[in-house]
Amino acid sequence: MAFSERVSRLKSSLIREILAAAQRPEVMSFAGGLPAEAMLPKVEWADMPVALGQYGMSEGEPELREALATEARAIGLQCDASQVLIVSGSQQTLDLAAKLYIDKGTKIVLEAPTYLAALQIFQLFGADCLTVPLQTDGPDLIALREQLEQHKPAFAYLIPTFQNPSAVRYSEASRVAVAAMLDEFGVTLIEDEPYRDLTFDGGSAKPIASRLQKASWIYTGTVSKTLLPGLRVGYLIASPDLFPHLLRLKQSADLHTNRLGQWQALQWIGTEHYHEHLSQLQSFYRQRRDAFEAALKQHFADIADWNSPQGGLFFWLTLKQPMDTRTLLDEALKQDVAFMPGEPFFADPDANPGYLRLNFSHIDPARLDEGLRRLAAVVRQAQLEQAA
Amino acid sequence: MAFSERVSRLKSSLIREILAAAQRPEVMSFAGGLPAEAMLPKVEWADMPVALGQYGMSEGEPELREALATEARAIGLQCDASQVLIVSGSQQTLDLAAKLYIDKGTKIVLEAPTYLAALQIFQLFGADCLTVPLQTDGPDLIALREQLEQHKPAFAYLIPTFQNPSAVRYSEASRVAVAAMLDEFGVTLIEDEPYRDLTFDGGSAKPIASRLQKASWIYTGTVSKTLLPGLRVGYLIASPDLFPHLLRLKQSADLHTNRLGQWQALQWIGTEHYHEHLSQLQSFYRQRRDAFEAALKQHFADIADWNSPQGGLFFWLTLKQPMDTRTLLDEALKQDVAFMPGEPFFADPDANPGYLRLNFSHIDPARLDEGLRRLAAVVRQAQLEQAA
Repeated sequence: MAFSERVSRLKSSLIREILAAAQRPEVMSFAGGLPAEAMLPKVEWADMPVALGQYGMSEGEPELREALATEARAIGLQCDASQVLIVSGSQQTLDLAAKLYIDKGTKIVLEAPTYLAALQIFQLFGADCLTVPLQTDGPDLIALREQLEQHKPAFAYLIPTFQNPSAVRYSEASRVAVAAMLDEFGVTLIEDEPYRDLTFDGGSAKPIASRLQKASWIYTGTVSKTLLPGLRVGYLIASPDLFPHLLRLKQSADLHTNRLGQWQALQWIGTEHYHEHLSQLQSFYRQRRDAFEAALKQHFADIADWNSPQGGLFFWLTLKQPMDTRTLLDEALKQDVAFMPGEPFFADPDANPGYLRLNFSHIDPARLDEGLRRLAAVVRQAQLEQAA
Repeated sequence: MAFSERVSRLKSSLIREILAAAQRPEVMSFAGGLPAEAMLPKVEWADMPVALGQYGMSEGEPELREALATEARAIGLQCDASQVLIVSGSQQTLDLAAKLYIDKGTKIVLEAPTYLAALQIFQLFGADCLTVPLQTDGPDLIALREQLEQHKPAFAYLIPTFQNPSAVRYSEASRVAVAAMLDEFGVTLIEDEPYRDLTFDGGSAKPIASRLQKASWIYTGTVSKTLLPGLRVGYLIASPDLFPHLLRLKQSADLHTNRLGQWQALQWIGTEHYHEHLSQLQSFYRQRRDAFEAALKQHFADIADWNSPQGGLFFWLTLKQPMDTRTLLDEALKQDVAFMPGEPFFADPDANPGYLRLNFSHIDPARLDEGLRRLAAVVRQAQLEQAA
């Protein structure tokens, strides 16, 4: 069997295994990043034109590209529809970016922690993943400068707004500083913003991409967190120097994104009923976050620290007494509780023990308290055993 | 700008440019591989469950995998639903296969000519493309044995049924011989069958994959040619040793295929109304082929040779007096005629002048005769100039 060299880096996905285990209806899952079923909007298909069954353009549907460019400009990102590429979920942006930039040994910069599936695909392509610690208001700027200066990475992959997994939102000052640094060293920005619209305090912040003067950039978003993930419709907006390459890579990956999902997304983006839906979603998730935090305080106050997320779908817990939380999984699942260990969100998992990512959007509120109680008990028991 | 090494092999796609030019309504296009608009079935969406808006499994919808496994067994391919992976159009199978097998310099075997977009993605990943000439009933078996024996390629990529572009269908004897040879040398088969169901003489042939005893295999198909390409739903069926790797690669590429298209495909695959639709489609395209061939005889009999396609969407013309048909494009487009030059379907285009691929499914029958008349005139004029 002669597979490619990269297949040796194709890891079994812990997330896949946990999500599979979490399929059992009796499991109380804090593991995935699934929208609440109750908040999936009812969508209509009756008016969809038959012609959308035909092949489409690799760029995506022209009207949807226009609508997304308009939305992007409204949050401060100057761009034209010609810079918008519709992708099969924003995960595909990472695949295209990996193809565009990464050879074996290519240096890139990531936050620590960062999005697990980004880490996986960048490592699959052979990237040498440099990291910068996240603080409460953005990355450690001294560490970032060092990495940029010393290593001239191919790109920096950042999730500045309600980061997955940490829920960190970069401050205004941090955004300005990061943009200036990327310009200074001419390092491409890949800015991933799936959670921007899931904001609970109404605060917003202009994308870092919109602050760049010289550096190339890819900004990516999705309708998966606010409309329907099953549509598999995301988008990227790129600086004009990158767009033609990304378009060809998109074409060779899957010709074009499904047109049904694109049409449905177009029925929502920029409309009054979408803004109403977003506002309901924000209020719904804010309540879920508040209920979750109340239960967390009751069960986890003595064993973990956290910041209250101002958006997104996750609490990021730091255990007061660090331990490899991957070792808790089996026992938690035995207790019918699923969660995401924090280690796999780091390029070097073994060096970063003691975090848990807990999703608060998906669990049935009636089972929330019991789920967290059991999970806390699993942690306590393991720490007792560790101490013994 | 520090792109990956592979980007230097990212060619501008001639097909994209031709199809863009063919968008002008006045252009008579023989260029694409588009189904006829008139034969896109009317599909219903009213009964689609709301829950399909949620994230789905990377493998695809269980019922659809079952239905496709049943269909595959009916054509002789022994397999189980657990071997079926739903992909975002069968183009994605090529992307996953490239990731699984191809490092820079990896040797693979292809037909000459072969599917343009396969050549592009395999070359993007750095494959060293060995080729085997196609004859009227399959590949040159002596040449195939030489390539397998001397080069131990990572895989053989074959399109045995109504090949794109040549319309060749491998004979029964050729299928048996190719399978035996792949087994003998332990070379993986990638069998691409988008056109299997577009048969005009009712003849069929068991997949080569179904005849393998030892070699690994990936069989891939799609609903794009028989139902709706805009759904972006294809599938692959793989030998059990390959499946887990392909599944992880699928997950890292785009998480999962859109569930709307999967649901719609499931409404058709294996049903009575699908078989009726296929039979109408076959009859419709048979008539188009016949009309096309009649017009071809009138305009091209003195300048080109061809075999009448027994299935698929294309005539493959061999000019009696070879010339680089890419040089005809500008003049043809000036005359409002689009076609696909044959050279890009070869790993070594410059060494293979003198072919044209003409799509017969999409053009308005009322404009067919005029389109072919103009195209023949462009060829004749260029050959006169060449002779002068």
